[in-house]
Amino acid sequence: MIQPQSVGAVVPQRAHFAEPLPLRSGDALPEYELLYETYGELNAARSNAVLVCHALSGSHHVAGHYADDPGNIGWWDNLVGPGKPLDTRKFFVIGVNNLGGCHGTTGPASINPASGKPWGADFPFVTVEDWVAAQARLADRLGIERFAAVVGGSLGGMQALSWTLQYPERIGHAVLVASAPRLTAQNIAFNEVARQAILSDPDFHGGHYYEHGVVPARGLKLARMLGHITYLSDDAMADKFGRTLRHGKAVYSYDVEFEIESYLRYQGDKFAGFFDANTYLLTTKALDYFDPAFEHGGILRAALARASADFLVVSFSTDWRFSPARSREIVYSLLHNRRNVSYAEIESDAGHDSFLLDDAHYHELLAAYFDRIEV
Amino acid sequence: MIQPQSVGAVVPQRAHFAEPLPLRSGDALPEYELLYETYGELNAARSNAVLVCHALSGSHHVAGHYADDPGNIGWWDNLVGPGKPLDTRKFFVIGVNNLGGCHGTTGPASINPASGKPWGADFPFVTVEDWVAAQARLADRLGIERFAAVVGGSLGGMQALSWTLQYPERIGHAVLVASAPRLTAQNIAFNEVARQAILSDPDFHGGHYYEHGVVPARGLKLARMLGHITYLSDDAMADKFGRTLRHGKAVYSYDVEFEIESYLRYQGDKFAGFFDANTYLLTTKALDYFDPAFEHGGILRAALARASADFLVVSFSTDWRFSPARSREIVYSLLHNRRNVSYAEIESDAGHDSFLLDDAHYHELLAAYFDRIEV
Repeated sequence: MIQPQSVGAVVPQRAHFAEPLPLRSGDALPEYELLYETYGELNAARSNAVLVCHALSGSHHVAGHYADDPGNIGWWDNLVGPGKPLDTRKFFVIGVNNLGGCHGTTGPASINPASGKPWGADFPFVTVEDWVAAQARLADRLGIERFAAVVGGSLGGMQALSWTLQYPERIGHAVLVASAPRLTAQNIAFNEVARQAILSDPDFHGGHYYEHGVVPARGLKLARMLGHITYLSDDAMADKFGRTLRHGKAVYSYDVEFEIESYLRYQGDKFAGFFDANTYLLTTKALDYFDPAFEHGGILRAALARASADFLVVSFSTDWRFSPARSREIVYSLLHNRRNVSYAEIESDAGHDSFLLDDAHYHELLAAYFDRIEV
Repeated sequence: MIQPQSVGAVVPQRAHFAEPLPLRSGDALPEYELLYETYGELNAARSNAVLVCHALSGSHHVAGHYADDPGNIGWWDNLVGPGKPLDTRKFFVIGVNNLGGCHGTTGPASINPASGKPWGADFPFVTVEDWVAAQARLADRLGIERFAAVVGGSLGGMQALSWTLQYPERIGHAVLVASAPRLTAQNIAFNEVARQAILSDPDFHGGHYYEHGVVPARGLKLARMLGHITYLSDDAMADKFGRTLRHGKAVYSYDVEFEIESYLRYQGDKFAGFFDANTYLLTTKALDYFDPAFEHGGILRAALARASADFLVVSFSTDWRFSPARSREIVYSLLHNRRNVSYAEIESDAGHDSFLLDDAHYHELLAAYFDRIEV
């Protein structure tokens, strides 16, 4: 045992792919770049690589910080590093920014080679399966034939699940945290309201706002405020904010009265200041579309028959965005196929956000699971 | 027993109040009109009056239809009429449109006598307590000293609860359906997103859009779409829409793909076509502010000590907007004060919307309760 440490200063790397990527939509990306980071060392047998897949607002920056921006800490830094649950003394960990993103990987703000202008709304729809295909090409480039594990929370968990179906021979373990096998109607409904907020913002300009020198900040702010409601549990919101009034009493105005309003507005404004609205749209659509059971008559256990990886599935008791019942759907379908699957429902009052937090039970569980993976 | 019948064609009535109404905000309404409807006959003892309070999108039009608009049926027509649970052969039932509304009662679209122009955003904030005070003045006007019952669902239930605290001697029974003693942080959060959608719509013009000949339809549409998510249960959405694709497969566009998207857009557009955005804002604020426990250190049982009415409290199993736990808070606080309270949690998969629907158990329960009220 060592004291957990940071991976330290990291440098994003860039991989260019000149060969077109065929997409599930029938479209294709003519060429593209992926931004990625790595932590730890690839062993001689090339058997210790772990891919970390990000969710809606994540990126390739999973752990560590940047030398010129020490406050910019990776989004899963509490999980990845020497002595941490995903221990970089044992594993070679890769974070990659997905296609359509806004953190350096080719996306809507990139230049469309056909027009010489930003792709904007012409950027093709990308799916979880497309992301996984692009990740597999990056693995080829890095000389990784098989991942010891693919890990992800929320939408990242969907990518890990899709890895087991698209490339069953290339993944040893799939770790799915706070995830779901497909969205429900209610999940899609929340995404749809967020999309309409962006699409109906006059500054959206049909997705070509870059050329107008504006961003649909109003719509993006609303989308993020709404998202935050679904990331937190009812209880966590009650504990953290309750009915606390900023001025101790009602002041009868549309300015902030309750602290929860202040929190949501702050989160919304912050997000609208850096995130790309087209990426938000594309990502919510990727979430909506993901449904491995679709081509199997909606029967998940038929879809998962193709998987051969070992699984760890983790859910959180108060997560109502992707509730424990959604994780159990995956578990039951895997058990039906006699796959090795471990399942844990972690008691947590933090809702969906729990997968990003530093819960002792959760991290001990992950540490124990990663510890027993043979590389 | 008779076969349930409609109350038939009804005519809204109008009451003008020249005396200013002091409001909780410290402001006052200089004069105002209330639109109301009545069904049945007031008995000689004036002891059979029942007030029905409406929720966010309701109005005074509770039952029956209009002779010149036979398709315009009252919002609780399934409950009110001869032979129906709230039987107009026994009761004199009153529906009244609350202040700040957009169905004929004085509201933001009415003319501000001080300026000669529509009130718009200058319409004062109104609270549940203010609505109840205005309803009491209407009761005075109609010669009703005491209501046999005050009845409401959702925000309407909050008004019934407030009646028991503001005018305990003027109410025999309070019937609170799918209601809550105050909003949670999550409830306020949803309201806040809806408000921001309206407030940030460029067509809002600071609430004075009437003068610009536009309405903030984009914002109002978003608010209503979001509202509908909270009115339906997760299960009801899954049963009704699931992941059904309009075209049988993904078509990769921001047009409607999933049927749930079509439903929400339709509901949003319809609502934005007739409802007033300023009324929406005021009503969500009235919801946020309502908190009878506030002046009792947050202790609900202390606040409810003042009530002397008998209570019927009804909740629905899949209502996650105002869950059964919220109704039980009221029940426990009343029992603590040794009040007569009946409580029922109705099994229903329809979520919050259940209070408007024709569920047999629910309606039998209400019928039995109203039947035993002595007038």
